[in-house]
Amino acid sequence: MRAIGVGLLGLGNVGAGVVKLLDDNADAIAARIGAKIDVRRIAVRAADKPRLVDVDRGRITTDVESVIDDPQVQIVVELIGGETPAREFVLRAIENGKHVVTANKALLAAHGDRIFEAAERRGVDIFYEASVCGGVPLIRALRDGLASDKIEELHGIVNGTSNYILTRMAQEGRPFGEILADAQAAGYAEADPSLDVDGWDAAHKLAILTSLCFGVRVRVEQILVEGLREIAPVDFHHAKRFGCVIKPLAIARDHGADVEVRVHPAMIPEHRMLATVTGVFNGVWVSSQALGPSMYYGRGAGMMPTAVAVVSDVIEVARDILGQASSGLPLRLRIRDWQDRPIRETGLLESRYYLRFTVVDKPGVLAQIDGVLGGEGIATRDVTQHAEAPSATETRATVVITTQVARERNMQRALAAFAKLPCVVDKTRLIRIVD
Amino acid sequence: MRAIGVGLLGLGNVGAGVVKLLDDNADAIAARIGAKIDVRRIAVRAADKPRLVDVDRGRITTDVESVIDDPQVQIVVELIGGETPAREFVLRAIENGKHVVTANKALLAAHGDRIFEAAERRGVDIFYEASVCGGVPLIRALRDGLASDKIEELHGIVNGTSNYILTRMAQEGRPFGEILADAQAAGYAEADPSLDVDGWDAAHKLAILTSLCFGVRVRVEQILVEGLREIAPVDFHHAKRFGCVIKPLAIARDHGADVEVRVHPAMIPEHRMLATVTGVFNGVWVSSQALGPSMYYGRGAGMMPTAVAVVSDVIEVARDILGQASSGLPLRLRIRDWQDRPIRETGLLESRYYLRFTVVDKPGVLAQIDGVLGGEGIATRDVTQHAEAPSATETRATVVITTQVARERNMQRALAAFAKLPCVVDKTRLIRIVD
Repeated sequence: MRAIGVGLLGLGNVGAGVVKLLDDNADAIAARIGAKIDVRRIAVRAADKPRLVDVDRGRITTDVESVIDDPQVQIVVELIGGETPAREFVLRAIENGKHVVTANKALLAAHGDRIFEAAERRGVDIFYEASVCGGVPLIRALRDGLASDKIEELHGIVNGTSNYILTRMAQEGRPFGEILADAQAAGYAEADPSLDVDGWDAAHKLAILTSLCFGVRVRVEQILVEGLREIAPVDFHHAKRFGCVIKPLAIARDHGADVEVRVHPAMIPEHRMLATVTGVFNGVWVSSQALGPSMYYGRGAGMMPTAVAVVSDVIEVARDILGQASSGLPLRLRIRDWQDRPIRETGLLESRYYLRFTVVDKPGVLAQIDGVLGGEGIATRDVTQHAEAPSATETRATVVITTQVARERNMQRALAAFAKLPCVVDKTRLIRIVD
Repeated sequence: MRAIGVGLLGLGNVGAGVVKLLDDNADAIAARIGAKIDVRRIAVRAADKPRLVDVDRGRITTDVESVIDDPQVQIVVELIGGETPAREFVLRAIENGKHVVTANKALLAAHGDRIFEAAERRGVDIFYEASVCGGVPLIRALRDGLASDKIEELHGIVNGTSNYILTRMAQEGRPFGEILADAQAAGYAEADPSLDVDGWDAAHKLAILTSLCFGVRVRVEQILVEGLREIAPVDFHHAKRFGCVIKPLAIARDHGADVEVRVHPAMIPEHRMLATVTGVFNGVWVSSQALGPSMYYGRGAGMMPTAVAVVSDVIEVARDILGQASSGLPLRLRIRDWQDRPIRETGLLESRYYLRFTVVDKPGVLAQIDGVLGGEGIATRDVTQHAEAPSATETRATVVITTQVARERNMQRALAAFAKLPCVVDKTRLIRIVD
């Protein structure tokens, strides 16, 4: 039986999952494609580190070039993550005529255009299902399943750590810091959680999805990105009052003339299907012209779910190698056909907003707050005020306001103005409402 | 620019959608694959019938062979439906070396093995995304996205008409017949609704999914199939009491030694994601070994949603033609590697059951019912009895029982015994519980 040579860059969690899955399902895969998938060489940083799977030590090397340049390696699987040196390795593999499978969202978000263009030019496949939503075959759905349709909008929960934290905060009424510590202990959050809880991981994924769906180039810096750290247990209580839950969303919308991209926690109606995506799970709601709404759901991270995406990609590339063809464009169109449409400035994005103020409980406070909002042309929709237990010196109150649709720029100016009001005694908390 | 010739068999609702979508998105598709998709010939039954789209009359013919045999047609799109004569047309197209895209679930359920085998032998593509769940790219997800994984189980709402009827019955408390009439008036149900509401359409789709996921041959007659006609508004009330909703499910489970297949309405917990799939929408919950659960959701029928699936298939086949390759196996493995595993006899399937009896309100009735159940080894879990408004002659009561897990064979024997109990005055209603 013919063998397809695979070179693995990285043998961490996902790399071990890939080796395990290729082993466990070797017969099924061979029956499926009529060839054996052979992991010939594995590049690692430290050759002696203990591994999650048994691999023949002779295949392990610390010399990445020896993998990328090996003539018997036809598919390079890049699992080292990060932009550097992954970028150079991937580009060199492509130049060598290797097909590439990668799970690296940071790399594709920053250098996708360069990498996809190189792959198109060299006529090799580049597959990246694992870079967004782990094992959920979302990239395939958008690239192939909806190939005939025009995608208009997507709303996704694409970061499992953030969803896990918000789900537990909602269930247990405990503050962010405590739940984060639990998540770290349970292995659902990194020691440095910033990539997840500050929205950057979701922004990387959104950049990839936006290029794929709309054929535009987007830099992460152009995305409105906001994390979870300022959400408090009481916000879930108010969300419930409005029939909403709080979910970490990544949103992209094609407005024709420009494209809107944003990552932030949002209040969404509890009857929406995305509201039922809980825990570490991911879910992406897509709206396309002819099909209408569709949704894709599953595990967006973890050793085996991510390995499913990587190995399914390897199988598809192997089929192309055996058929001496390419699976076609990595995106929905050629890079040279990308449209030069602008990414909408974050200041021009529109939302409804939930605002929570801690104020000194004195007459005229609401008038001052509403004066600021009115000055920015922002209309309120729902206002409630609750007195808090009085302290020795003064009585405080919580004011919760939801607004009509307003512009981000106006809201940011209003926030700056609230910070200067003497009656507002704590930072004003804001959550966008997506209905 | 190179052109790929398509021959269309059938120009009804979906055919018109295909022509429209190919027209509307012609530029995007051409940019994507570097070739034009050209609908060269369209075979119809009546050439003069008014159509939903404008097509050049010169391309329309009543002679199907002239389409299938046209050397300029590279892809035959079969949209005439039904087993005969579609089967002969598809097989002849394959023999002619044409690639085939079909939306025909009845055909694939009955003759899939023969057709897939012919396509494998001849080295042509056969794509059938539209045959299950319309525009939702479910077939791609199962065939390619989970190619590396072992699928263990799927639970799906795959018939939109049934889901629409049950959704409205639950919302409005009105009987089946009235809602069916509304659905027919709204175009959501056929004049002859039997294929949908009696479960046969779902059974066709389940047969296709079972072959795809588990590599076994299943005939529709081997599937436990039960429709909706006997569900009454009061059943939704009881479902709610148990924290459940009633959904039309198609279920396939790989037990290793054999395979379980069933289509019936079921009570499922209201917090399950499938419970939120309402109206005409479809949703399929898949459980696979490495990925765990995943779900796919969207419109399973209708002109444009179905056209999305057909045209996306045409695009993928066109890419194969341009790359001079085949997209590989229509299923997850070669037909010759299909396993000869039995389909589990319907009598051996296991469920929990909900039973609703109308009885004469006399002492000892519960003992008689429980005696029958006990005689079949079926344990009860929850029993309630409500007296109904007394009539002139006798007082009746409703008894609702949920059981522990039991075998279908025993339950069918119990149903036959209930029918002979003098105290049971109406047919015993049964809904399976899937939790």
